[in-house]
Amino acid sequence: MRIAVDAMGSDNYPEPDIAGAVAAARDLGDTVILVGDQARIEPEVARHNTADLAIEVEHAGQVIEMTDKPAEVVKRKRDSSIHVGLNLVRSGAADAFVTAGNTGAVLAVAMLRQVGLGRIAGVKRPALAVIFPTKERPLLIDNGANADCRPEYLLQFGLMGSLYVERVLGIENPRVGLISNGEEEGKGNTLIKETIPLLTGSGLNYVGNIEPKEFIKGQVDVGVTDGFTGNLMMKTAEAIGAYMSNLIRDEMMANPLTIAGGLLARPAFGRVRRRLDPNEVGGAPLLGVDGVVIIGHGRSNAYAIKQAIGQARRMVENQVVEAIATGLEQYAGGSGQ
Amino acid sequence: MRIAVDAMGSDNYPEPDIAGAVAAARDLGDTVILVGDQARIEPEVARHNTADLAIEVEHAGQVIEMTDKPAEVVKRKRDSSIHVGLNLVRSGAADAFVTAGNTGAVLAVAMLRQVGLGRIAGVKRPALAVIFPTKERPLLIDNGANADCRPEYLLQFGLMGSLYVERVLGIENPRVGLISNGEEEGKGNTLIKETIPLLTGSGLNYVGNIEPKEFIKGQVDVGVTDGFTGNLMMKTAEAIGAYMSNLIRDEMMANPLTIAGGLLARPAFGRVRRRLDPNEVGGAPLLGVDGVVIIGHGRSNAYAIKQAIGQARRMVENQVVEAIATGLEQYAGGSGQ
Repeated sequence: MRIAVDAMGSDNYPEPDIAGAVAAARDLGDTVILVGDQARIEPEVARHNTADLAIEVEHAGQVIEMTDKPAEVVKRKRDSSIHVGLNLVRSGAADAFVTAGNTGAVLAVAMLRQVGLGRIAGVKRPALAVIFPTKERPLLIDNGANADCRPEYLLQFGLMGSLYVERVLGIENPRVGLISNGEEEGKGNTLIKETIPLLTGSGLNYVGNIEPKEFIKGQVDVGVTDGFTGNLMMKTAEAIGAYMSNLIRDEMMANPLTIAGGLLARPAFGRVRRRLDPNEVGGAPLLGVDGVVIIGHGRSNAYAIKQAIGQARRMVENQVVEAIATGLEQYAGGSGQ
Repeated sequence: MRIAVDAMGSDNYPEPDIAGAVAAARDLGDTVILVGDQARIEPEVARHNTADLAIEVEHAGQVIEMTDKPAEVVKRKRDSSIHVGLNLVRSGAADAFVTAGNTGAVLAVAMLRQVGLGRIAGVKRPALAVIFPTKERPLLIDNGANADCRPEYLLQFGLMGSLYVERVLGIENPRVGLISNGEEEGKGNTLIKETIPLLTGSGLNYVGNIEPKEFIKGQVDVGVTDGFTGNLMMKTAEAIGAYMSNLIRDEMMANPLTIAGGLLARPAFGRVRRRLDPNEVGGAPLLGVDGVVIIGHGRSNAYAIKQAIGQARRMVENQVVEAIATGLEQYAGGSGQ
């Protein structure tokens, strides 16, 4: 297998990106193609022991920074590591592309056939799926690729998410829920109400509306939502997690007894942090584009990059892209334009 | 001042509701009208020392339970404590109504002039405001009264929320932000994009789009959102808070050393819990209806009920309803139908 990795992706590129790619090449035995500025990649690779590893470099003359506006760089930075990496997948020179770069730019480039990959035939809107970093690891789709959605998009998100968790996470007959502000009939906005009959008749294992409390506990395997709501849910969860951690730390430091308690309890806090660590779950698969693309968090460390590469590998191995293409034909309502 | 309190509201009615009302009557010196089943209220009141307190009882023959569907009970249970309490406000027999009852039912009854209060002239949609229980206490509006919104509604939410925090919380020239999935221009869904020019031209202190991380830290005083998104944000925050607390407890119990640490640090955890306790912030004002209505959490204890009564008092005292009515005339775009 040949996996292209954006060497200029993460906030601290190219160190974590390259270290993660080297580790993946070593552990998985696959070919890793580092995409980016050759002059910066080669000395960084030289710092690792890469004897017997299949590591290649594909030069890209431009870098899309986190501060770049996606709409501006899609056509202006055609020689960016994101463009070059996606084109390796498009041409068949690579089986997958992994990046921790500017999410908006990856989405924009990947969706356009002229500059990136384009969509799988029949897909209305590709969507960003993300694994919620609670113990039960439910999948949330869409996490921000589509701020405005129609019921038919949500139906396809359910199908694509379902195929992903089935094939990559090995969950049989995954339970699909629609994220809403109540489980009772009559709850939800117009989009939710119009999506319910589509999911009910879809052939998917649709189990109804689900609230955040039940979602994060994994009472469904796939939580379907529009990208605006999904992204705000994810951001709220991250914000509250960080807020609580800081608050606990501050309150512990308030007196010597609780400081002592905090020191003794430190291993427990470490375990909590690791269990909620987004680096553990890898990256977010972009589903519906015509190739395997995994987008990692900008803060990804080498371990997260390696995990994302492993994830890309399982998507290729288990033919998720092909499954989506055929799935759209099988499931009712999924294939109409 | 005369404040009507739903004696049949909270999950554990009538105990916390009545205990909170008695405490408020004692501390604030106002008249409290307990609304509900007289036969259940009187023995409960008798358990308290109410000498010299102005406590009245208004009988209501029906109870709306948490499991009742709002649409079904609006017209069927016209003698419920919610109907009777709101009608005391409508007739002028009470200055405000405080309830910890079925939120959907309170919203439905309050909004309809035939059975409850009706809207302030010019208000397109009343909205539920809620104080986010982080240290900085920002206000989120709407928290679920309106699942589907139009830009003009959001503009009015901004105005109503702004007047509330100005008059009740004493914040001068409150900063108003639009909750979105990014602060940059171009982020947000169509609703957000269409609301921006309205807020910009409104005369409110609109400071731009704001993400959950900055919102919970109080970088705005008022966060404006549609009721579907707002309610999911609030529910996600509550769910993550509870999830993290449980996870920390479980991990602490994993070995003797961390158990000891947890015991020593217990006061710090207590302080964290109190700082994030929704009981501390009182209830959610329903803004835009023609009278003062505060809706408490179903899990409200006596202290939360008392806080909510104090909140209602400040709304009456500072004439928030009147300010919304005149505000709608003053601010651009606010008063058109």
